[in-house]
Amino acid sequence: MDYRFARRMEQVRPSTIRQILKATEQPEMISFAGGLPAPECFPVAEIAQSAQRVLAEAGAAALQYAVTEGYGPLREKLVAEMAVRGVSCATENLLVTTGSQQALDLIGKVFLDPGDCILMEAPTYLAAIQAFQAYEARFATAPTDELGLDADRLEEVLRRERPKLLYTIPNFQNPTGVTQSSERRRRIYELAARYGVLIVEDDPYGKLRYAGVDLPPIKSYDREGIVLYVSTVSKTVTPGLRTGWIVAAESALQKLVVAKQSADLHTSNLDQRIVDRYLADFDNAAHVQRIRDAYGARYTRMNECLTKFMPEGFRWTHPDGGMFLWVTCPEGVDTQEMMPAAVERKVLFVPGRDFFPDGSGHRHLRLNFSNASEAAIRTGIERLAEVAALYAGVKV
Amino acid sequence: MDYRFARRMEQVRPSTIRQILKATEQPEMISFAGGLPAPECFPVAEIAQSAQRVLAEAGAAALQYAVTEGYGPLREKLVAEMAVRGVSCATENLLVTTGSQQALDLIGKVFLDPGDCILMEAPTYLAAIQAFQAYEARFATAPTDELGLDADRLEEVLRRERPKLLYTIPNFQNPTGVTQSSERRRRIYELAARYGVLIVEDDPYGKLRYAGVDLPPIKSYDREGIVLYVSTVSKTVTPGLRTGWIVAAESALQKLVVAKQSADLHTSNLDQRIVDRYLADFDNAAHVQRIRDAYGARYTRMNECLTKFMPEGFRWTHPDGGMFLWVTCPEGVDTQEMMPAAVERKVLFVPGRDFFPDGSGHRHLRLNFSNASEAAIRTGIERLAEVAALYAGVKV
Repeated sequence: MDYRFARRMEQVRPSTIRQILKATEQPEMISFAGGLPAPECFPVAEIAQSAQRVLAEAGAAALQYAVTEGYGPLREKLVAEMAVRGVSCATENLLVTTGSQQALDLIGKVFLDPGDCILMEAPTYLAAIQAFQAYEARFATAPTDELGLDADRLEEVLRRERPKLLYTIPNFQNPTGVTQSSERRRRIYELAARYGVLIVEDDPYGKLRYAGVDLPPIKSYDREGIVLYVSTVSKTVTPGLRTGWIVAAESALQKLVVAKQSADLHTSNLDQRIVDRYLADFDNAAHVQRIRDAYGARYTRMNECLTKFMPEGFRWTHPDGGMFLWVTCPEGVDTQEMMPAAVERKVLFVPGRDFFPDGSGHRHLRLNFSNASEAAIRTGIERLAEVAALYAGVKV
Repeated sequence: MDYRFARRMEQVRPSTIRQILKATEQPEMISFAGGLPAPECFPVAEIAQSAQRVLAEAGAAALQYAVTEGYGPLREKLVAEMAVRGVSCATENLLVTTGSQQALDLIGKVFLDPGDCILMEAPTYLAAIQAFQAYEARFATAPTDELGLDADRLEEVLRRERPKLLYTIPNFQNPTGVTQSSERRRRIYELAARYGVLIVEDDPYGKLRYAGVDLPPIKSYDREGIVLYVSTVSKTVTPGLRTGWIVAAESALQKLVVAKQSADLHTSNLDQRIVDRYLADFDNAAHVQRIRDAYGARYTRMNECLTKFMPEGFRWTHPDGGMFLWVTCPEGVDTQEMMPAAVERKVLFVPGRDFFPDGSGHRHLRLNFSNASEAAIRTGIERLAEVAALYAGVKV
């Protein structure tokens, strides 16, 4: 049968990262492509103990249907975590989601009519592009520099494009790794408030800072209820449990709850209780410090190796946290075309194009430094440098 | 801030069941309202053992991000389960979803443009109505009788409404409990094929038969790839793990995978592996037999009590399986108006109106018989009969 798919699906690009990830399975492959946390840092024994305790104590209640809003004690812990991050909210403002990806999907569902404009950083998180494509959004890009979203040039774009939503990742942005200053955050908030734009503040990486000091989220400035704050335990506990959350003003949250009812009824009851129990019984702050140390060491190693091995003309960002850095190649290089040679030499990255709503970005590539060991980072960057030399030499 | 929500959200009615469920928490309340399986039947110890084995053996791999399509060994087991149900398919035809609710949401996302017609039984599963409302479907209802969808009168409706999708629950339908005959299934399939209509066959309850013999799913007749078959482990293992699946032709499945990427990346890795391990290590068929025995006994008790206590003029269905029966009240009764008196007497049901896309159905109510003990069923039906007598006496 020839299916007639809904028009919205014409826009949605399948993720090429997912295709690249298939190459990851080849023997000897070193991958800087995925956005995977370091599995050595997962608290496996603690999660196993938490699961046992939940099932021993709550029994069948942990396996029954549950309320859409999320498991009460977990919501309370996430509200407390929000206070640590500088955001004062109540459980009525917080919805547990099936990973933060679902939060983006629900925001699209609740706020975007076809043709509504969403303003994004360029480059930005590619699965956010996908999520909003499914609601037939019109994409506009906001000017950025080495400090992220450029507040000085934002106003003109807001006036011209009249976006409904502004999507931003202020901490250790994916894919660039850059962080907005406090000053910029406040100005972005004020501009959005003035132009009646909702801000989607996506903060999966904020806890992963290995240099510098924590900055307040944009949500901490929110007096008018215009910021939808999204986060996840994927990077601080584990991603496989699919537990994220949204913080929003109560009337917006209620709509998101209705949308979630029809999307999956509720997030896994067992997973939520395991996360809750883990946060209650173990020292997650100490655990996150170990993750930071590991990622800081891996970033340092990757930066050293890039400095040592990469040919002239290649530049990259120097993130204070997170999982990614962003390489800019010399004029004329198309990183998509470098892929076959890279696969052959057993090293993987993600070409820049996937991160731009408009498909530009051919000179860039994203490297993940959280998932490979320091030894693998050295070998992998040597291989990447060979590919880069070969390729830049031919092209430039 | 006054939010401007997307137009699609105007259609989506919040579930009144979820509101009724709040009344469930009152002391002494006996609820026949929810669609909850019997928690006494959950294999809690086996799930706990499965969780331990998964984490001991797979370790961090069980907690990492995973592929969108689902955990390979689980997909293989579900393909084998489909063969038991009379459907021959491959893993390429099967997508694991975050409960079967997500399957309905993804089908709406992939197939329904605003204004596309979806033909549904009236009454039908209310969260399916919600899921398709979010894609601005136009709803039409298919004629039904005490044997479900009426194949004789279906053709005229197909010709008139030209639906894109036909949504049906052939086994122990929610809310009526009725089951389509094999003959009807085949004719419904043939009509849909002739008119180029996709069938969404929702089968959450098919394994819960306590009387009669299993009938082949509509999907078993599918030569043209027009049937999207949806099921779940919620009723045969536990619902809290949010693990469902869709079976579809490969090109349709690939689109559903893209939609799922943007919706939640993948279903909980740990949950999927727990379900997989449970199915590998324990005798689920024997377990399902125990569920059937329990539900059969509860249905029998409810039917006895209704016969004994309900006043004249009330009729109800006699399901061979599943979790629900459907009461038709005398002319002039509005079951919504019975609710306050029922709440006061500490018994809950769901008024019929919620199950009709057009809001009709005021003479009906749904009773769940899977979640209350036999003793509670007796007390609860006595209470319900008092309310009914009072109410029917005043109104009729």
